Amino acid sequence: MRSKEDILPDCPVALTVSMIGSKWKLLIMRNLLARPWRFNELQKSIDGISQKALTEALRSMEADGIVSRTVYPEVPPRVEYALTELGESMRPIIQSMEQWGNNYKTQTDRYTT
Amino acid sequence: MRSKEDILPDCPVALTVSMIGSKWKLLIMRNLLARPWRFNELQKSIDGISQKALTEALRSMEADGIVSRTVYPEVPPRVEYALTELGESMRPIIQSMEQWGNNYKTQTDRYTT
Repeated sequence: MRSKEDILPDCPVALTVSMIGSKWKLLIMRNLLARPWRFNELQKSIDGISQKALTEALRSMEADGIVSRTVYPEVPPRVEYALTELGESMRPIIQSMEQWGNNYKTQTDRYTT
Repeated sequence: MRSKEDILPDCPVALTVSMIGSKWKLLIMRNLLARPWRFNELQKSIDGISQKALTEALRSMEADGIVSRTVYPEVPPRVEYALTELGESMRPIIQSMEQWGNNYKTQTDRYTT
């Protein structure tokens, strides 16, 4: 019987990349680190993402156990996406990207002003 | 006149994602953080990457100033790809991915053994 490890990349970076190594997943994670979001909100907030791409990214993140999908029995039903504990544990990755982006902007400002 | 900032995303995470937000770029960066690599070496080392995808990723990273391409005048010419200082400054991002991947493996082992 194949266990889950058999299909996980040996390299820890490749393993992480297999879960969030795409533009859309990284931007979705950035949003979800702040609070739970509804589908339409996410689509409006992430520039250029199509409904199909957002659906696929969210399903893949759900399958990997980093995003949860909760349906609230209202009329019409409200569906919210949130990070699981496992997804939340990826915060340092997004934080390091945020820090790098901020440093880059500061340096770019220094050169151009 | 448009300055470089006009076309950079406002969000620092989105800015970083615009430079390395793809599976291939993240894996290339993982390799280049260790040492300079030749094209063919990179292609053999990164499972599933096509010549076209590797060429495109390297060109894009060169254009963003995070990867340098050096041609050594040998016969046949040797071409090496390396991180620039700017690319090197992304090390904490890949390190946080490595750390997450290692933690994940440790937890998975705990549950399955």
